[in-house]
Amino acid sequence: MTIKVAVIGLGSMGYGIATSAVKAGLTVYGFDVNAAQVSRFEAEGGLTGSVADAGKNISTAIIVVLNAAQTEATLFGPNGIVQHMTKGSVVVACATVAPDFARDMAARCAAHDVLYIDAPISGGSIKAATGALTIMAAGPDKAFDAASPVFDAISEKVFRLGAEAGAGSAMKAVNQLLAGVHIAAMAEAMTFGISQGVTPEAFMEVIPDCAGTSWMLENRGPHIVEGDYTPHSSVNIWPKDLGIVLDIARSSGFGAPIAAAALQQFLAASGSGLGHEDDAAVAKVYARNAGLTLPTGKRDA
Amino acid sequence: MTIKVAVIGLGSMGYGIATSAVKAGLTVYGFDVNAAQVSRFEAEGGLTGSVADAGKNISTAIIVVLNAAQTEATLFGPNGIVQHMTKGSVVVACATVAPDFARDMAARCAAHDVLYIDAPISGGSIKAATGALTIMAAGPDKAFDAASPVFDAISEKVFRLGAEAGAGSAMKAVNQLLAGVHIAAMAEAMTFGISQGVTPEAFMEVIPDCAGTSWMLENRGPHIVEGDYTPHSSVNIWPKDLGIVLDIARSSGFGAPIAAAALQQFLAASGSGLGHEDDAAVAKVYARNAGLTLPTGKRDA
Repeated sequence: MTIKVAVIGLGSMGYGIATSAVKAGLTVYGFDVNAAQVSRFEAEGGLTGSVADAGKNISTAIIVVLNAAQTEATLFGPNGIVQHMTKGSVVVACATVAPDFARDMAARCAAHDVLYIDAPISGGSIKAATGALTIMAAGPDKAFDAASPVFDAISEKVFRLGAEAGAGSAMKAVNQLLAGVHIAAMAEAMTFGISQGVTPEAFMEVIPDCAGTSWMLENRGPHIVEGDYTPHSSVNIWPKDLGIVLDIARSSGFGAPIAAAALQQFLAASGSGLGHEDDAAVAKVYARNAGLTLPTGKRDA
Repeated sequence: MTIKVAVIGLGSMGYGIATSAVKAGLTVYGFDVNAAQVSRFEAEGGLTGSVADAGKNISTAIIVVLNAAQTEATLFGPNGIVQHMTKGSVVVACATVAPDFARDMAARCAAHDVLYIDAPISGGSIKAATGALTIMAAGPDKAFDAASPVFDAISEKVFRLGAEAGAGSAMKAVNQLLAGVHIAAMAEAMTFGISQGVTPEAFMEVIPDCAGTSWMLENRGPHIVEGDYTPHSSVNIWPKDLGIVLDIARSSGFGAPIAAAALQQFLAASGSGLGHEDDAAVAKVYARNAGLTLPTGKRDA
C-alpha cells in the first residue's frame, strides 16, 4: 500500500521535504498559501486539493510552517487538518516552537486520537531538498512506527529524544541558541579582522583550521567573502528563533547574555532593512557601525 | 650542523614545544621561572644553563610566555635574550599580544640585527606536545628560511600572513574572539538545555551532528559531561585574551558586543574562584545563576 502524506507549508524547507517524499515513492499532498508554490509542486509529481480530502487519506501530516501560530492554525484552525485525520494517524510538527507549545499541541491532537511527534529539523534547505535533514524528535513509539517510512524519505538522521512532546523543541532551542550566536560571532570576528587588516579571504583560509571555527562559520563565511546575500536562510529567522530561545529562558529564570547580545545584532540587521537577505548580512551591521567595507558581489544590494 | 634553539617559557604550551623540538633532533635549551619544570625538561633531554650562553649558541629563540609584559621581559629585560643573540638569528614570539606590540618588538629586535616572527599559536597543549600546532606567522622571508627546521619540528601547519609583524597577532586575536565566544556559548547552551530537561549527555550526542556545533563545543563539552575541570586551558586565559581583543577593538572604534558578553562570563568565573579550573568551568557561572546542577566527576572540586 502506498504511504500517503500531506506536507503543509511549501517554503524553502517544506518544499524540499515534500519533493524528497515524492522521490521516495510516497503519495504526497502539498499545501501552501502561495498558489505558485503549489503549482510548482504539482509539476514535480505532487497532489493537491482540499485539506479535508487529504486529511482523510493520509497516515502522516508534516507541518513545515514558520512558527507556533501557523502551526496551530494549520492543525486546528477552521481549515485545520487534524479534524479530518483518522484515528492513529500522525502529525509531525517541524517548526521551531516553545516546548510548552509542543506539549499543548500533542494534548490537543490526542483528543482527536491523532498521534503527535514534536520534530524540529536542522540542516537547511539543501539538506531538505536531498532528503538528508537531521530531526530532533520526541513522541510515542507507535507514532514513530507509523511515520518511519516518512522519516526514511526526508531525513539522514533522526534523534529519538523520548516519548514526551517538548523534548524535540527543547533540543532545537538549544541548537538555535548556538547557531544564531555562531553566525553573529562569525560576522563580529570577520569584521573585527577587517579592522585589523585581516582580509575575509585570509580569515576563511586560516580560521577553519583553528580552534575558533564553527559549522556556521564554514557555512556562512563564504557568503560574505563572495558578497552573495541570496537568502538560503534569512536574517528574519533569528529575531524569531533567538526570541523563542530567550522567551523560554526568561520563563525558566535562565539568563543567556550571549544569545541576548546576538539577538540585538540580528534585530539591528532586520530593523535596518536587511531582514530578507541571507543571515550572513548581520556582518553589514558590524561593518556599518565601524566604517568598514565588505566584499561586494553581483548579488549584493 | 645541529640546529640549536631556546624555548623560554615551559608552561603547558612551551613544554610541549620544547619536547617536540628535542624529539625532532634539535638541541634545545629550556628556561622557566619554575625550576621543577626546567629539571623535568632536562630529564627529557633538554639543556639549560644561562640565558647569555644559550643566546650566543642558538639560531632561534621561541618565546612561549603568558603575555606581552613577559614577552618584553624575556626579550629585553635585564636577563633578556636578545642582547646575547647573534646577527641574523630569529625570535619566534608565540604569546597572544596586540598587533601594535608585535610591531614594536620587531623594531626593537631589528635594532639588534635580530629577526622577528610574530607567531601566535593555536591548538592547545596536546597538539603542542605532539609537534602539531597551527602557527599564524608573519615576518620576513629570511626569518622563515632560518627558522623552518624549528617550525617543521613543532607545527603541523604554518600560515604565512605576510612580512610585517602584527599580521599574525591580528589573526590570533580574531581566532581568540571566536574561541572564547564559542566556549561561553557552549556553556550557555548546555546549561540552558539542562533548564529545559536536555541532559548534557543528550546535548553532546545531538548537537555535534547539527548546525549549532563548533570546534570548542566538541572539545570542551565533554569536560562538563564528565565533571572534569582539570585545566588543559584555564578560565584565566580568557579575561586576558578577550581583554586583548576588546582593547584592540576599542582602539579601532570597533564594537564587539558578543565578545564583550562572553568576557563578562569569564570574569564572573574568574572572580568567583574558578580561574585555575578548565575554561569549561564557565558553565558553573550559568548553573549557579540559574540554580541548576552540573554533572560531577572525581576531579570536580
